[in-house]
Amino acid sequence: MSVTVPPSGFDRELDATLALAFEKASALYRARGFQRRIGFGSRPALINVDLANAWTRPGNPFTCEGVDDRIIPGVQGLLAACRRNGHPVVHVTTCYQVTDRSNPLTDMGLWHDKIPIEVVAQSNPEIWAIDSRIEPIEGEQVLIKKRASAFHGTYLAGFLRAAGVDTILVTGVTASACVRETLCDGLADGFRTIAVKECIGDRVAGAVAWNLFDIDAKFADVESVERCVAYLDDVGHVPIAAE
Amino acid sequence: MSVTVPPSGFDRELDATLALAFEKASALYRARGFQRRIGFGSRPALINVDLANAWTRPGNPFTCEGVDDRIIPGVQGLLAACRRNGHPVVHVTTCYQVTDRSNPLTDMGLWHDKIPIEVVAQSNPEIWAIDSRIEPIEGEQVLIKKRASAFHGTYLAGFLRAAGVDTILVTGVTASACVRETLCDGLADGFRTIAVKECIGDRVAGAVAWNLFDIDAKFADVESVERCVAYLDDVGHVPIAAE
Amino acid sequence: MSVTVPPSGFDRELDATLALAFEKASALYRARGFQRRIGFGSRPALINVDLANAWTRPGNPFTCEGVDDRIIPGVQGLLAACRRNGHPVVHVTTCYQVTDRSNPLTDMGLWHDKIPIEVVAQSNPEIWAIDSRIEPIEGEQVLIKKRASAFHGTYLAGFLRAAGVDTILVTGVTASACVRETLCDGLADGFRTIAVKECIGDRVAGAVAWNLFDIDAKFADVESVERCVAYLDDVGHVPIAAE
Amino acid sequence: MSVTVPPSGFDRELDATLALAFEKASALYRARGFQRRIGFGSRPALINVDLANAWTRPGNPFTCEGVDDRIIPGVQGLLAACRRNGHPVVHVTTCYQVTDRSNPLTDMGLWHDKIPIEVVAQSNPEIWAIDSRIEPIEGEQVLIKKRASAFHGTYLAGFLRAAGVDTILVTGVTASACVRETLCDGLADGFRTIAVKECIGDRVAGAVAWNLFDIDAKFADVESVERCVAYLDDVGHVPIAAE
Repeated sequence: MSVTVPPSGFDRELDATLALAFEKASALYRARGFQRRIGFGSRPALINVDLANAWTRPGNPFTCEGVDDRIIPGVQGLLAACRRNGHPVVHVTTCYQVTDRSNPLTDMGLWHDKIPIEVVAQSNPEIWAIDSRIEPIEGEQVLIKKRASAFHGTYLAGFLRAAGVDTILVTGVTASACVRETLCDGLADGFRTIAVKECIGDRVAGAVAWNLFDIDAKFADVESVERCVAYLDDVGHVPIAAE
Repeated sequence: MSVTVPPSGFDRELDATLALAFEKASALYRARGFQRRIGFGSRPALINVDLANAWTRPGNPFTCEGVDDRIIPGVQGLLAACRRNGHPVVHVTTCYQVTDRSNPLTDMGLWHDKIPIEVVAQSNPEIWAIDSRIEPIEGEQVLIKKRASAFHGTYLAGFLRAAGVDTILVTGVTASACVRETLCDGLADGFRTIAVKECIGDRVAGAVAWNLFDIDAKFADVESVERCVAYLDDVGHVPIAAE
Repeated sequence: MSVTVPPSGFDRELDATLALAFEKASALYRARGFQRRIGFGSRPALINVDLANAWTRPGNPFTCEGVDDRIIPGVQGLLAACRRNGHPVVHVTTCYQVTDRSNPLTDMGLWHDKIPIEVVAQSNPEIWAIDSRIEPIEGEQVLIKKRASAFHGTYLAGFLRAAGVDTILVTGVTASACVRETLCDGLADGFRTIAVKECIGDRVAGAVAWNLFDIDAKFADVESVERCVAYLDDVGHVPIAAE
Repeated sequence: MSVTVPPSGFDRELDATLALAFEKASALYRARGFQRRIGFGSRPALINVDLANAWTRPGNPFTCEGVDDRIIPGVQGLLAACRRNGHPVVHVTTCYQVTDRSNPLTDMGLWHDKIPIEVVAQSNPEIWAIDSRIEPIEGEQVLIKKRASAFHGTYLAGFLRAAGVDTILVTGVTASACVRETLCDGLADGFRTIAVKECIGDRVAGAVAWNLFDIDAKFADVESVERCVAYLDDVGHVPIAAE
């Protein structure tokens, strides 16, 4: 899981050290029955988490690494596969009605006491709009969440169950927060969970790697874009009729 | 609990028969330890449920009875009391991104298979906007829900807990659906629940009466607007500081 | 929906008055697009709510009407149909670890401030055990809940989705609390909801009738045991494989 | 955050490399407004996650590192502080009614497709009982969960809000799964979240370190046992009355 900007010397060392740690840990995990494969189900949905301007474009506290050359092209491929096969797509973003940190009556809850979510004001739609390179088309859900998980405090689980979905492919940012929480909750809510490797990003060196390692060991299968696109085409053209 | 339009002969008979049924049932409930008082707590919030145009104005499948002469004036009094004392207010409404009933990939979930929610399209904000007679002011939350309960699939519980709220006063429509579900979930989520009698409506004769009876027996205290306003003023001016 | 004890004169009058009220209300509901049919799906589960001794046997504050001659025989028929076809069954009951009402640190939350749930102590399993006439067999879930809904604060939705279930048939007590809440939440969580008419009870005259009326108008189809058994056999023998 | 067994040469190198990575990442995080302090509130509860025999005693696939010499003594100190001050304690554990992996109708949901939870059978209470060195006393909740988070699919949030709690101190295992999920959900549900550093463990080298780093940056304050005990005593003796 290399970072996309040419790693500094240290980043390369970090990657190598983590790779060795993962190798050792995997030996223990496999011996104990972790790192099993959950597998793809029969009715997938694509969940793109926080691929909105505050996270995908330069100059915001939330700006992530690897967006332009890795995440966006990968998501474009997944979107095309979903659209040609009629698989549901959910575009998730985050914004708040009250962004005054001194006001305790805010839909930020207490999260602004940890991270700078006050920058994502609902009154400024440009900042939380889905990135135009992967923008929603008619019939795709745009889901506004307030917390890390796309499931927590949203209608996502009920929507997916009602639509007969049994598998979620998750992309987006960040590996260490919203993507990880979405995968953990998705599994807990009864869905097969797939993390699309090249389409998940973060801000600091190592964070994508250690989070995908934990996720793959316990909460979701980490799979390549290529395999996911093949799966979406293969399972494809299933008419997702009302149950 | 009289309906506000002059009741037809039958409606008067229904009211009288229900009143007698409630009297008999109350005797059993009280003997068995039901119908207890939950009481007002120390940090209230006002939750107005679906007091939006589709429900409060004539000519919609969702149009309710008793809005103009009973619910709106009552809610205006509650809003004034909340605003002069700094108590939080949440305005709840309902709308959907995909309102084509033949499309299984809809945020209506399966509810459109029971009721005509396809009329509340997100793309038509006028229809689900909060009634202008009780419109939100700066700093008050406008919460869009997809299901009956204002808590189910929303960030409401987390928002209220983070704000230190321990008591919810619930108004709106309908008694038999969204108001009742909001009260049941509010209690389950750990809040003292108050149903504001004059500010709750429905569409058919008897429905307000039998639902408030069940609610008062098991899920919330049914209280008058007058008592609620007095409480909001009495507990008032508590600076709801971040905990 | 007759009550099972021979109705007093008043109970008969109440039934007749309610029947007329429902007829008038149904005309309005149908004209406006309510009371639609949600229909049976392809993978059912049976959810029996609070058919435990405190509710089904005499002498408890929670004791209900119509258990012996109506609810239990009906549920026995449904259980047999589920078992011969391999459909999942969930037996729901309710109990608490801390039942001292003066202790604010109780898993009763605030509900004991409305109803006498302090009688259902976890330390006294006989009181909350599933009625022996419909007792669980190996492989059927026994789910302990703390609130009215079998979904709220439990793993039920995730369990059902993981098992591929799309339809829930709900029985039990009471119509005005736990059964109604379970159906409302089940629909909101994305499941087709069926209320099994003869298998739902309550404590006071009229409560089954007015709650099933509201439920059928908005949240679930009210169907007979006979139709549900036929459905369970018809859809039956579907191997519910892991998705 | 050193591991408690004498680290091999590699483990020491991993720790050093991670420490450097965290230093670099912290510079970016702080510059962008992450790693804020959420702070202690006024009414704490202690949540011990999965400190049950399968996780704390040798010989199980779930056995963790650092239990005997670090986690248990720390939790004993926290428990004593809670008990002498009347702060609520919740002991969380995990077990399943159906542990046959080939049976899709299991309360394991789909999680057994990733990790070996089939070893924690409800029918074998010894395996999931809370470790006797920190065993519950009368009045403390023992909460059985099915998923990673102590909040997901449980009554925990409603219980805590009803009890007036605004702050949770979380201990237990593992950093990369149940502890992290509990903290993320606790914050999302509206509680101030504190991760007690010495009382959190895992199974593989590095996992405690990188997870506490992510948690402290975004979801909870990582604090020492010493500071937490001082806080519990300082805020202590608050009579947590029903609100």
